[in-house]
Amino acid sequence: MSRLYASLFYQKQVTEIFSDRSLLIYMTVVEVALAKAQASVGVIPQEAAQSIETICTAQIVEQLDMEALVMASEQAGNIAIAFVKQLTAIVKASDEKASRYVHWGATSQDILDTACILQCRDALDIIEAQLGNVHQTVLAQAQTHRNLIMIGRTWLQQALPITFGHKLARWASVCKRDLARIGQMKPRVLSVQLGGAVGSLASLGNHGSAVVSAFSRQLNLTAPVCTWHGERDRIVEMASVLALIVGNLGKMARDWSLMMQTEIGELQEPAGNGRGGSSTMPHKRNPVAAASVLAAASRVPVLMASLYQGMVQEHERSLGGWQAEWLSLPEIFQLCSGALERTLNVLDGMRVSPEMMQRNLECTHGLVMAEAVMMALAPKLGRLNAHHLVEDACKRAIKEQRHLKALIGEIEEVRQQFTATQLDDIFRPASYIGNIQEQIDAVLRQAVGAAD
Amino acid sequence: MSRLYASLFYQKQVTEIFSDRSLLIYMTVVEVALAKAQASVGVIPQEAAQSIETICTAQIVEQLDMEALVMASEQAGNIAIAFVKQLTAIVKASDEKASRYVHWGATSQDILDTACILQCRDALDIIEAQLGNVHQTVLAQAQTHRNLIMIGRTWLQQALPITFGHKLARWASVCKRDLARIGQMKPRVLSVQLGGAVGSLASLGNHGSAVVSAFSRQLNLTAPVCTWHGERDRIVEMASVLALIVGNLGKMARDWSLMMQTEIGELQEPAGNGRGGSSTMPHKRNPVAAASVLAAASRVPVLMASLYQGMVQEHERSLGGWQAEWLSLPEIFQLCSGALERTLNVLDGMRVSPEMMQRNLECTHGLVMAEAVMMALAPKLGRLNAHHLVEDACKRAIKEQRHLKALIGEIEEVRQQFTATQLDDIFRPASYIGNIQEQIDAVLRQAVGAAD
Amino acid sequence: MSRLYASLFYQKQVTEIFSDRSLLIYMTVVEVALAKAQASVGVIPQEAAQSIETICTAQIVEQLDMEALVMASEQAGNIAIAFVKQLTAIVKASDEKASRYVHWGATSQDILDTACILQCRDALDIIEAQLGNVHQTVLAQAQTHRNLIMIGRTWLQQALPITFGHKLARWASVCKRDLARIGQMKPRVLSVQLGGAVGSLASLGNHGSAVVSAFSRQLNLTAPVCTWHGERDRIVEMASVLALIVGNLGKMARDWSLMMQTEIGELQEPAGNGRGGSSTMPHKRNPVAAASVLAAASRVPVLMASLYQGMVQEHERSLGGWQAEWLSLPEIFQLCSGALERTLNVLDGMRVSPEMMQRNLECTHGLVMAEAVMMALAPKLGRLNAHHLVEDACKRAIKEQRHLKALIGEIEEVRQQFTATQLDDIFRPASYIGNIQEQIDAVLRQAVGAAD
Amino acid sequence: MSRLYASLFYQKQVTEIFSDRSLLIYMTVVEVALAKAQASVGVIPQEAAQSIETICTAQIVEQLDMEALVMASEQAGNIAIAFVKQLTAIVKASDEKASRYVHWGATSQDILDTACILQCRDALDIIEAQLGNVHQTVLAQAQTHRNLIMIGRTWLQQALPITFGHKLARWASVCKRDLARIGQMKPRVLSVQLGGAVGSLASLGNHGSAVVSAFSRQLNLTAPVCTWHGERDRIVEMASVLALIVGNLGKMARDWSLMMQTEIGELQEPAGNGRGGSSTMPHKRNPVAAASVLAAASRVPVLMASLYQGMVQEHERSLGGWQAEWLSLPEIFQLCSGALERTLNVLDGMRVSPEMMQRNLECTHGLVMAEAVMMALAPKLGRLNAHHLVEDACKRAIKEQRHLKALIGEIEEVRQQFTATQLDDIFRPASYIGNIQEQIDAVLRQAVGAAD
Repeated sequence: MSRLYASLFYQKQVTEIFSDRSLLIYMTVVEVALAKAQASVGVIPQEAAQSIETICTAQIVEQLDMEALVMASEQAGNIAIAFVKQLTAIVKASDEKASRYVHWGATSQDILDTACILQCRDALDIIEAQLGNVHQTVLAQAQTHRNLIMIGRTWLQQALPITFGHKLARWASVCKRDLARIGQMKPRVLSVQLGGAVGSLASLGNHGSAVVSAFSRQLNLTAPVCTWHGERDRIVEMASVLALIVGNLGKMARDWSLMMQTEIGELQEPAGNGRGGSSTMPHKRNPVAAASVLAAASRVPVLMASLYQGMVQEHERSLGGWQAEWLSLPEIFQLCSGALERTLNVLDGMRVSPEMMQRNLECTHGLVMAEAVMMALAPKLGRLNAHHLVEDACKRAIKEQRHLKALIGEIEEVRQQFTATQLDDIFRPASYIGNIQEQIDAVLRQAVGAAD
Repeated sequence: MSRLYASLFYQKQVTEIFSDRSLLIYMTVVEVALAKAQASVGVIPQEAAQSIETICTAQIVEQLDMEALVMASEQAGNIAIAFVKQLTAIVKASDEKASRYVHWGATSQDILDTACILQCRDALDIIEAQLGNVHQTVLAQAQTHRNLIMIGRTWLQQALPITFGHKLARWASVCKRDLARIGQMKPRVLSVQLGGAVGSLASLGNHGSAVVSAFSRQLNLTAPVCTWHGERDRIVEMASVLALIVGNLGKMARDWSLMMQTEIGELQEPAGNGRGGSSTMPHKRNPVAAASVLAAASRVPVLMASLYQGMVQEHERSLGGWQAEWLSLPEIFQLCSGALERTLNVLDGMRVSPEMMQRNLECTHGLVMAEAVMMALAPKLGRLNAHHLVEDACKRAIKEQRHLKALIGEIEEVRQQFTATQLDDIFRPASYIGNIQEQIDAVLRQAVGAAD
Repeated sequence: MSRLYASLFYQKQVTEIFSDRSLLIYMTVVEVALAKAQASVGVIPQEAAQSIETICTAQIVEQLDMEALVMASEQAGNIAIAFVKQLTAIVKASDEKASRYVHWGATSQDILDTACILQCRDALDIIEAQLGNVHQTVLAQAQTHRNLIMIGRTWLQQALPITFGHKLARWASVCKRDLARIGQMKPRVLSVQLGGAVGSLASLGNHGSAVVSAFSRQLNLTAPVCTWHGERDRIVEMASVLALIVGNLGKMARDWSLMMQTEIGELQEPAGNGRGGSSTMPHKRNPVAAASVLAAASRVPVLMASLYQGMVQEHERSLGGWQAEWLSLPEIFQLCSGALERTLNVLDGMRVSPEMMQRNLECTHGLVMAEAVMMALAPKLGRLNAHHLVEDACKRAIKEQRHLKALIGEIEEVRQQFTATQLDDIFRPASYIGNIQEQIDAVLRQAVGAAD
Repeated sequence: MSRLYASLFYQKQVTEIFSDRSLLIYMTVVEVALAKAQASVGVIPQEAAQSIETICTAQIVEQLDMEALVMASEQAGNIAIAFVKQLTAIVKASDEKASRYVHWGATSQDILDTACILQCRDALDIIEAQLGNVHQTVLAQAQTHRNLIMIGRTWLQQALPITFGHKLARWASVCKRDLARIGQMKPRVLSVQLGGAVGSLASLGNHGSAVVSAFSRQLNLTAPVCTWHGERDRIVEMASVLALIVGNLGKMARDWSLMMQTEIGELQEPAGNGRGGSSTMPHKRNPVAAASVLAAASRVPVLMASLYQGMVQEHERSLGGWQAEWLSLPEIFQLCSGALERTLNVLDGMRVSPEMMQRNLECTHGLVMAEAVMMALAPKLGRLNAHHLVEDACKRAIKEQRHLKALIGEIEEVRQQFTATQLDDIFRPASYIGNIQEQIDAVLRQAVGAAD
């Protein structure tokens, strides 16, 4: 991913977490934790662990020879072997004895997987906070706009009235479920990896299980019941929850981009800094955030396909499947966080146009209220009669290009039963929104209570 | 999906659940539940609901004009409109008055989505049971083979010894997590859908919420806080858990198909009925179950991509995204259930060859034990010395094509410290499997206790 | 694929070609061709081939025991083994001697692959004809509407005027390229498959190459330079061209569905049989064809991913990858043909609304003509001056909600240089469409000439 | 993509072509070509174009404010707007008048698309050359190993003998087709993009078509018949051919990684620099190139899915679909080139082990020759008799763990017809490879002649 494009799609902190530099720091943290864990159960000398901890600070990354790492990684097929070699050399320069215990009993994948889990934990924290913000913001907007009438649309066609608050409440309900998903998943997936070459920790003799426990305590991660080098469901589950989040954000972006169409004009992304504008087309306000979120919602799914397929791994540690993860997992985190950032920005600062919503409600000249009228007339005129009468009026309204209310108001049978004021009320979209307010209330209540 | 191919990839009951015929029955069940719910809260007459229930039994599906349904569906863009029309006509033939209340206040998607949830619930029950069986079977096999030594492999290369039981325990651990995922997901996703055209249930006036509650009780499903016509996370979450399961099964199938290679021969799929055999190639035993499971594990991920992308829906009810679900969701259920069936069959009846496992352990003439030997010599000879000594012996073993043990046994320094019997023991793979037995125990304990 | 859903997405003839029944007929045709080819080069007796040809007509499929086929396929992992067994038995019932030469020297995959190529050839002929029709229809519509002015849109925002004919000409240009792609691909991909178990045709001794040639002549297919059991680029290339076609159709469907939005109303899918209508929402006309085409355009790409991945096959004949083809390839053909059918129907019968196009051009009150005005004023007022003047007028037009032309017309500097009539002309969208007519001409010329 | 991982999967030159820096240089080249084209047809002054050309050299990129570009891109939704602004400012500093003509009449997408096509052309040249090298290398190896007998495998099971040269010839045949695909595609896809905001080049008045022609001549690209901002088949076709290539390479990598398994040992990736080795597991030689190629072959297909789906674009210029291209297209080029590089390296330097091939041929104790034996006995003993006799011998061979030849040689009927020498010959794998040599010859002939 180029820096130029990163700015369009990603989020800074999460991008930083998955940078080469940070990865090397996380790997260093893992090596230190391993040494300390082993010292704590007597597998390596305490002094060695202390020495390793003292030497291997985050700053050590600046001492690594990046070019050599890049070259060696290609030869080795992963980046950990060369990293451990350089790390060991640095420790050796200060403390030859301690250097013998660097990476003791571990395999490359132990370090890379555990570092990956640490990256995921940090990125997940950011994403959870972002999602919480989106949730709160959309709830507040749902509250604000709970009575703002607009047309509901199905199949890209106008259907019946809703309120903008209902649309927002539906989005909020999804955020709540996504938060619940993250919460349920975390204890299952945030586990250390430590198994040695084939998952047996053979070189640790009978200390293996104790080291795994101590290692997980050092890093505040779960100790798994067994090694999971080849069983990648934890990794893929994390990504799958992010993919659900991105899908949900994509739905929002689709909606707001459609509402931003020049001819519809019900919503605009926040302006500022000439964002989305055009000097020669002064009427334009491009939905740049929507474009970014929609691109993420189109891309994350295919990266997910790659991760699911990568689960089909060979034997104790795989060939190709694991490597494919490295390309997809960080990007899914980055796209998810980027999409959350842009969505929050829009939800927070969007410009709503009640006037255009009103105008759009009117653009069929009352036809969108045909069902409401039928339901209102039925009790007095009989269901079947009401149906025929309204259907006929609709046909004439379309043919004569007149407003349905005018035509209905001219019908003698109707005039006998309804005053003009009553008819006005029947044609008021706000009187035909069913249980929308109760749904909004339910969403608001649920937001402060237990998960759906 | 052709019937010919269905037999290769699917499972009968789940295929039946998603058949055209069953779908129409589920839709009928939904319409009956809707009528009863509405009668229970006074929205439609009790007699109408009773009449609808009496007439609309599962057998009614035989009365439907399938050709007309097919034709009308193309025109309407979904199958529910024509279905409701035919259903209404059938009710009308017996009870004109009741027929007016068929499908009262609902939109096509309410019926299709709720019927879909019912299909998913039934299919999920089958899958959960299948997964439970796989879990128990693989646990039992892990117990049986916990001491059966074989070579562990990484990057498709021999690495260090493991036991077959450890491999199986790792698989079992995954099944346990998958079962937990299903359990956590169910209450969130098994919800009715009832919102009318735009989610407001406007035509039900102020009875909307009461009808939704009654409807959900009728079907023993959750009542959602709000309509979810355009928010598809429930549907996609179900599929995503199935995709994890299929990925995990694919991993198993990859392993057993590799172990079945003629040259490796450690495992065979169960025989029977000439399964996988060849008349002119008597040595062949094709891994036909593996081929099926691997095909599923390659296909489900891309169907998932389609579902994730389909989440980007338009407004209150979408155009295209919902339709794409109909093609992918049933197939994911069918492939998952089919893969579970074939995996269970293999796990249950697989033929294990300890002889071949033994032979493969020996095929590097002791080189796979080099690390073990080094670890054993280190305490007595010094770590560095042991390392050089073994490394040198390995090079000679390769060059001279001799067994490593023989070469090590000739070294004077080694002979001074170790007897031949001790050396035999060092070279015994079973003495170099680390904490594998503890891991197996942990998996067995976890299986009967709380989720990981 | 259920029949109910097939009617929404597929095309009848292509669906028939890929039905179970047709597949068995194609396989029969392949077995007959094989026998005749072998007889023609003296590998099997002429009488045997004649007998096989006489017995194995298309009608033979009715004699097959379908249930047994289904059962046996699951055991064997493919459908050909059981098919050949049944076919041989049928031949044997009439001519024991001939029955010995059924499927002589071939492997299951030879029959399945060659039958598949025959299915593809027939389906490709239909698709090529459909695409030709779409091409001609869109060209004719481009000609018809070449001067029909409408607003061009970018980022879902109004931008500058175009003509509807230009939009159509761009679509036509794509069809032309797709036709060229099919033409170039055909000779490369329509090849017989005949290699026996491992591609060597060993059981045919030194007659292998002669039989391949004769076999390809019998079926009027290319004889490949070598066996391609494990090299699937031909199959995948076919699908990849169909995927390009479907992507192009998806673009058209996206456009016309957006143009059909109630608020935009520039286009409608053809009506008829209550297609896409709603009884309670008289203003609705659902874009049902667009929904179907868009669903195809979302699904075919992920099926392609599966096919591309399936190319990674094992050794001489693969495990899982080949099987995955059976699920994706027929569906891609069916979805492509279905999408072409629906697109042709729309292009042929769409209702265009010049009035709504005109209204939409006006809805920004002249702002979309700002650039045109600037370009027109520049020569007389100076580029920079013109720019400032128009920019200022635009801001006021938005603020005061007035038409840009009125504001521009009030500016003294402008009045000195331009008459009201000249200003009218400057604000006429038709006067600002650049080289659109030349592009349309180029597309029309290219259509009758060489490929682009 | 991190630099660390780029070294595992990419190729340096192609990575450089798609770097941020190179993209900005290509965009500069496009702006210069545009100015020169416009000057050549009299749309802008010659001096302006000369000035722009003089100022806008590749070195200009060093003067750009990268941070500002990154920031502005996020606001604008693409990187071209900010780039043009900076470029114009740089020109203005030297030549105010010329600066007015920078980017004259073009839209951002014109510059980005044309720059993209230039990147693709350069990258395609490299890939074509790499593929040509792979083709020649695999042809040479096919020639070298045309008589090297090995076992053919199907379903991961040993089947019948082939030669290693035949396997290689099949791979070569694919390369030839891929080269033909590139050749046919190039003139269709390497086109300039120039349409202005909506494809009409309105601001160029009646000079649009002339400018497009001159522009395409400047860049030595095709002039398209019409604008293609929203019709992305050219871009996707390029990627689709690369995806076929990667799929084919994945097939090779799968084969060689399976052949490298410790137990099979028929092949090894080239050694060197401790590549793929392990200090504690001296017997290991990890297939690191295969891992990289297989990861690419798993990833490119899903990126393709994203590109195909991105074809569904909105109106004259799209929202989201175009953006998604920027993430997938460069990566597909990079992965394809990286996979070619690693494949060439392996094909060139692989270590073949005829001894292990021989050992594997023998590991079923003659069972793989059963069909050959049957075919050899049939003429003398009768087909049915031969079949029973061999089948019976095979069963005994498996049961008694003896060599099939020994058992066959003991049968009286056989001894009467065949000498021991003749029997040896029958059991010689090399005598049962059908028309393999003719196929290899055909592939070699085709390589120097016309495309398949």
